[in-house]
Amino acid sequence: MLQKGFSIRPALGIDIGGTKVAYCLGRPDGTLLARHRRPTEPSGDPDQDIARMGADARALLDEAGLAPGDLAGVGVAVPGPLDPARDRVIDPPNMPGWHDVNVVARLRDALPGVPMVLENDANAAALAEARFGAGKGFRSLVYLTMSTGVGGGIVMDGKVRHGRTVSAGEVGHIPLVWEGESCFCGLRGCAEAYLGGRAWARRLAGVAPPDGRVAELAGGREHATPVQVVEAAKEGDAFALAEIERFNRYLAQTLVVLTFVLDPDAIVLGTIVAAAGDELVLDPVRSLVREHAWGRIAEGLELRAASLGEELPYYAGLCVALAASDSSSTS
Amino acid sequence: MLQKGFSIRPALGIDIGGTKVAYCLGRPDGTLLARHRRPTEPSGDPDQDIARMGADARALLDEAGLAPGDLAGVGVAVPGPLDPARDRVIDPPNMPGWHDVNVVARLRDALPGVPMVLENDANAAALAEARFGAGKGFRSLVYLTMSTGVGGGIVMDGKVRHGRTVSAGEVGHIPLVWEGESCFCGLRGCAEAYLGGRAWARRLAGVAPPDGRVAELAGGREHATPVQVVEAAKEGDAFALAEIERFNRYLAQTLVVLTFVLDPDAIVLGTIVAAAGDELVLDPVRSLVREHAWGRIAEGLELRAASLGEELPYYAGLCVALAASDSSSTS
Repeated sequence: MLQKGFSIRPALGIDIGGTKVAYCLGRPDGTLLARHRRPTEPSGDPDQDIARMGADARALLDEAGLAPGDLAGVGVAVPGPLDPARDRVIDPPNMPGWHDVNVVARLRDALPGVPMVLENDANAAALAEARFGAGKGFRSLVYLTMSTGVGGGIVMDGKVRHGRTVSAGEVGHIPLVWEGESCFCGLRGCAEAYLGGRAWARRLAGVAPPDGRVAELAGGREHATPVQVVEAAKEGDAFALAEIERFNRYLAQTLVVLTFVLDPDAIVLGTIVAAAGDELVLDPVRSLVREHAWGRIAEGLELRAASLGEELPYYAGLCVALAASDSSSTS
Repeated sequence: MLQKGFSIRPALGIDIGGTKVAYCLGRPDGTLLARHRRPTEPSGDPDQDIARMGADARALLDEAGLAPGDLAGVGVAVPGPLDPARDRVIDPPNMPGWHDVNVVARLRDALPGVPMVLENDANAAALAEARFGAGKGFRSLVYLTMSTGVGGGIVMDGKVRHGRTVSAGEVGHIPLVWEGESCFCGLRGCAEAYLGGRAWARRLAGVAPPDGRVAELAGGREHATPVQVVEAAKEGDAFALAEIERFNRYLAQTLVVLTFVLDPDAIVLGTIVAAAGDELVLDPVRSLVREHAWGRIAEGLELRAASLGEELPYYAGLCVALAASDSSSTS
């Protein structure tokens, strides 16, 4: 009758990334029982891909001496647009053949009778950073992925805010400049067109001095990457420093927008920002935000680099399951 | 023991506006039992002002044959920054002497033993439009005031989202243009610097042709107003139409930002937009939003003019009380 015991049961997370699938068994307090990662290697046939994921998940359960019935739930994190009401993944990048696929229904063969929840990767990462990472202890936060693209997730009181079409937190596509730079999404002036790694690499191909340090670090490759800009900037290269300054200005605008719309406790910034660190990015951006937002809002706002790093995929899927089992055990 | 009966008891709203104070007694279904409006006429002494409001409120209760104990609650809507956790109004515009005033404590003399809730005017208006106005039936909406300034309120599942410093929904100050036009708030490039009536009037003083229709409508006054621009645009005046086009472009950018951040069911637009109507503003803005946001987000988004008009102050205070008594009777 100890219904509250439900919430201390372990959960299983499956994070389907573009290059790797991460599996993780863990408890609500963050204790990890078992985990596994393997290359995604999509076959072109979603049935076959998902059957393999089901088998991997079962193998992990076996390793931990658990059966599907021992789980509080399964969380599945996937990239790109999805329709969680219908448990469907629409068209994840790098997953050929995955069009409008009901992942949950197909995973049930391997994991019968377990509650399953689907979430997009940015929202899953937001849950993970909120529960076990840089956002721990805050009631409301926005997480920004800051990688190839700029994704985002909004977590309030432990739950993702999805919005009407599961697009809330798509911060990468707010128009920072009306009719500005073209974005890979087809729109113009999006935050991602200034801050996304892919857009930045495209820009670097045009503006990086061919005999400069950034080009040197890029070696023979066609495009330099933001990581190489960060590296050159850390060495004091003037071009790289100017690029970082430009990045910081657009990032600050994005954060000021979020601050006035959501007034969150914290904003947690992923990959590129975490790699660049405080001196190059976070400190200058904190100053810019203080200059461009009202004092009473900006002063207590926590701007932090994401802290889960390479561990993120394990926690992302797990936290999707844990967030769902929290709400089912309290409601 | 019928604790649920709580929620059908009447509530009292007091809306303290810059020029008028509106009092309203009503039921959760929107039935109004009595109402009253009088000029604000601040005395310079908050004690005296609030004592008069308390007396007005008691007179309204008497008129309806009710005692304070019959009320589910009292809602007080006030302009400007406030600290609802401490029941304090910070510095409302047009209320001399009101500095860090605990309105609730002072109103208790007249209305003892009744739960009282304080809310800022934009959030109160958002609750009112969500419950009884253009936003009725939607789970999540953003309301924008679109008057002298641009205020905003976010309502999700019948409750205002306040944010950490009660600044969530301050949409008027998102930076549409980095380092753009100066805003009366001290920042630059804010939405309000392009869309607020006061900023627009300042601009018109510089750009309106002195022999044009807008100047003619403004008569001898120093500044033409947005209302005169709307009027001239309805008559087909070319300058006024270009001004409206400019307004629509900045409004659309604001709405696209909100759409990507919050993905709400509806956005409800107040005063200027309601006055301008569909043809001049709402239809062109709907088209611009569809062009500048992803189809799947923009298509089902409801963009509507506010519908409570002159009745808004009565419902605003009332809805603050009703929203609070909803949550206390369900939690």
